[in-house]
Amino acid sequence: MKAKLTAIQGAIIAPRGFRASGVFCDIKRLGTGKGSEKGKKRDLALIVSDVPATVAGMFTTNRACAAPVKVCVERVEKGSAQAVVVNSGNANACTGRQGLEDAREMARFTERALALPQGTVLVGSTGRIGVTMPMDNVRAGIIEAAVELGSTAGHAAQAAEAIMTSDTKSKQVAVEFKLGGRAVRIGGICKGAGMIQPGMSATGKRPGATPLHATMLCFVTTDAAIEAKVLQAALREAVANSFNRITVDGDMSTNDTVVVLANGLAGNREFGLRTSDFGVFQFALTHVCLELARMIVRDGEGVSRFVTVRVNGARSFADADAAARAVANSSLVKTSWHGGDPNWGRIIAAVGYSPAAVVEEKVDIGYSAPGSREILWSLKHGQPTAATFKALCAAVAPREFDLHVRLNLGRANAVIYAADLTEEYVEFNKGDVSDPSSLGG
Amino acid sequence: MKAKLTAIQGAIIAPRGFRASGVFCDIKRLGTGKGSEKGKKRDLALIVSDVPATVAGMFTTNRACAAPVKVCVERVEKGSAQAVVVNSGNANACTGRQGLEDAREMARFTERALALPQGTVLVGSTGRIGVTMPMDNVRAGIIEAAVELGSTAGHAAQAAEAIMTSDTKSKQVAVEFKLGGRAVRIGGICKGAGMIQPGMSATGKRPGATPLHATMLCFVTTDAAIEAKVLQAALREAVANSFNRITVDGDMSTNDTVVVLANGLAGNREFGLRTSDFGVFQFALTHVCLELARMIVRDGEGVSRFVTVRVNGARSFADADAAARAVANSSLVKTSWHGGDPNWGRIIAAVGYSPAAVVEEKVDIGYSAPGSREILWSLKHGQPTAATFKALCAAVAPREFDLHVRLNLGRANAVIYAADLTEEYVEFNKGDVSDPSSLGG
Repeated sequence: MKAKLTAIQGAIIAPRGFRASGVFCDIKRLGTGKGSEKGKKRDLALIVSDVPATVAGMFTTNRACAAPVKVCVERVEKGSAQAVVVNSGNANACTGRQGLEDAREMARFTERALALPQGTVLVGSTGRIGVTMPMDNVRAGIIEAAVELGSTAGHAAQAAEAIMTSDTKSKQVAVEFKLGGRAVRIGGICKGAGMIQPGMSATGKRPGATPLHATMLCFVTTDAAIEAKVLQAALREAVANSFNRITVDGDMSTNDTVVVLANGLAGNREFGLRTSDFGVFQFALTHVCLELARMIVRDGEGVSRFVTVRVNGARSFADADAAARAVANSSLVKTSWHGGDPNWGRIIAAVGYSPAAVVEEKVDIGYSAPGSREILWSLKHGQPTAATFKALCAAVAPREFDLHVRLNLGRANAVIYAADLTEEYVEFNKGDVSDPSSLGG
Repeated sequence: MKAKLTAIQGAIIAPRGFRASGVFCDIKRLGTGKGSEKGKKRDLALIVSDVPATVAGMFTTNRACAAPVKVCVERVEKGSAQAVVVNSGNANACTGRQGLEDAREMARFTERALALPQGTVLVGSTGRIGVTMPMDNVRAGIIEAAVELGSTAGHAAQAAEAIMTSDTKSKQVAVEFKLGGRAVRIGGICKGAGMIQPGMSATGKRPGATPLHATMLCFVTTDAAIEAKVLQAALREAVANSFNRITVDGDMSTNDTVVVLANGLAGNREFGLRTSDFGVFQFALTHVCLELARMIVRDGEGVSRFVTVRVNGARSFADADAAARAVANSSLVKTSWHGGDPNWGRIIAAVGYSPAAVVEEKVDIGYSAPGSREILWSLKHGQPTAATFKALCAAVAPREFDLHVRLNLGRANAVIYAADLTEEYVEFNKGDVSDPSSLGG
């Protein structure tokens, strides 16, 4: 189902009854001496609903799972919450019992600062792994953030900044649409640039034997009135078609989290799963998630190309997905994109070594402008077409293009939003051991 | 079983009754104008046994499989051969019927040039994908190579050079050992630097549902007397513990090939599978393959670190292998190695997202000198040890070190020989679209 969406300002404070803030509390303990402008990036955010909200979440399936994720999984299961506290600079991962206690204390302290009931605050963290949280700084930050709460676009922008790590841009979106005659709004902020190939599930457990694949954090607010179960169903589908379809470097984080708070202040009638209202809400939520997910890839560490890999004609979705991920995560394919080199030889090699059923003599490979059906084919039935090298180079020269792989074996399709691999990525991630605080998780 | 091996000179001509050559025939058609020294690297090799030999082979399981691999699979099945013709510069992959005809013609033409019976010559190719073979150049090269055949170490070195592509060094090894009182020799050459994560099987088909993962080519000669079936069993085991355990960039090629010719001129008594002679031969063949396999990783494109990833205590070999490959192919782990950064956070994240069964609270991660049991642990039971950042940095500063991951869930182990990821790798592989001849397959 499609629905008419209007882009609006304000991100997470666009929906009625939400306030936000972002402050600096020196989570990396860089010191706050005068002139230390480097250390002044905001690093703690609050998002608060004026009234209790229903809640849904999707979490990393990494078996090394950070403490704040564990706390969120427990709390989201209860179906309601009213606020989220998030820090950057420390992932609170691989921190054992102390980490879990710290994550709970972050929630408890926020509850007290905001005079909220116990169990109503969710927690998110991103940054270094294996370092315990500087709780004095965190508490000071929470108090300041509670004082700073507000509902202007500027407040949302400060929260969006506070969750950034290696991101070069803050990531915000909001839309308005009609639900049973009422204007409903959904807004979101997210972060993520490296360690990006999320594979999230509602419980952090892997569904079946399917191996899934940042830290990416995403916080969505809406004033829709919607039951927690219905919200969870919509979020699962939205994440399956957005965050779980992106890759920057193929690495799945210990902290990936998407959380939605729905406070009902739009005053729409609640709706069930198989209703047209659900279809509209689903469409809008997926749109918000996909916009944010694609911002992550475009702002990926060192990224110079954004490539939409479209695999069609696979025997099954699992095959289509496996072939698309093999291409999207191949170092050789990614470096060729960076070089503006159509190198379909590397692409068919990656398709061929993926677990997917592939018959070389049936494979077509082509390129188009983003979303265009005018495809320049480099390979048809496993063999080169008459397309010239110059024409193929021109097709992959733009910063964004679509790569089409047709297996011609069945009817299943999959899309992966992918980034290239650049010298800048390597340089950034090799870090600087003389400055351990530069080394991300 | 262990056996005493003596390193000897001569590589593939070290065993009795073998001759080799390597010539330049301009397979990339760079032109041979005077002063064009760049184009003068040898690009066609011959390896010939004076007498018929038994043969065994292991081949890429990539579903996009090059024509020479298809020809080899057919011919190795018959169990005997007498020569190998190999070219670099063109992979003869994705070249359809013409490619298959060209691969057969390479074999046929070599048979005529050497006056060998039909079906006794094997073929190998490596280089660009999707370009048909310049058969006039190939034929001229075969004639010249047949004339140049000889049995000095210089001849073997020329053959080793002729199969190189992005390799910076030629790769050769030979050993001598005793089998039933007789001195037996095994020698080998190989090539490979990028598109390296071989997953080879005897038929090019995947055994069961296990997804396997260069172009790497390897040619081994021996004067052992050994039945084809026994030789194939020994090669399968040798490859499982060598070439199928390496990764440079995680990309599996369309052309990976390992072939062994055994001409029996050592005069040993033939031996069956469960004999002590087999144990000795197996030990020697695995040694030769592992030496060559590790040379590939050390000479990998842009490589600055050679890391042996040892996963112990997994529930199954599949789990140990999956965890080791996740670490060895993680862009974030590989870039941290390049930076001399112990970053165990990225390592446990990779272990955690691998398909292996992992319990975070049980994982140990440590570093040692190559082969040493003195391990500096950075993580014990999922939490940081007291090891200082400085000490950990010192452990990963050398060009070669071992990384130890203990899952503490079972008794299965796996080793992967891995390389780091450097700016040089990216720069090399992004290629130069203004010079298409620079773009490898």
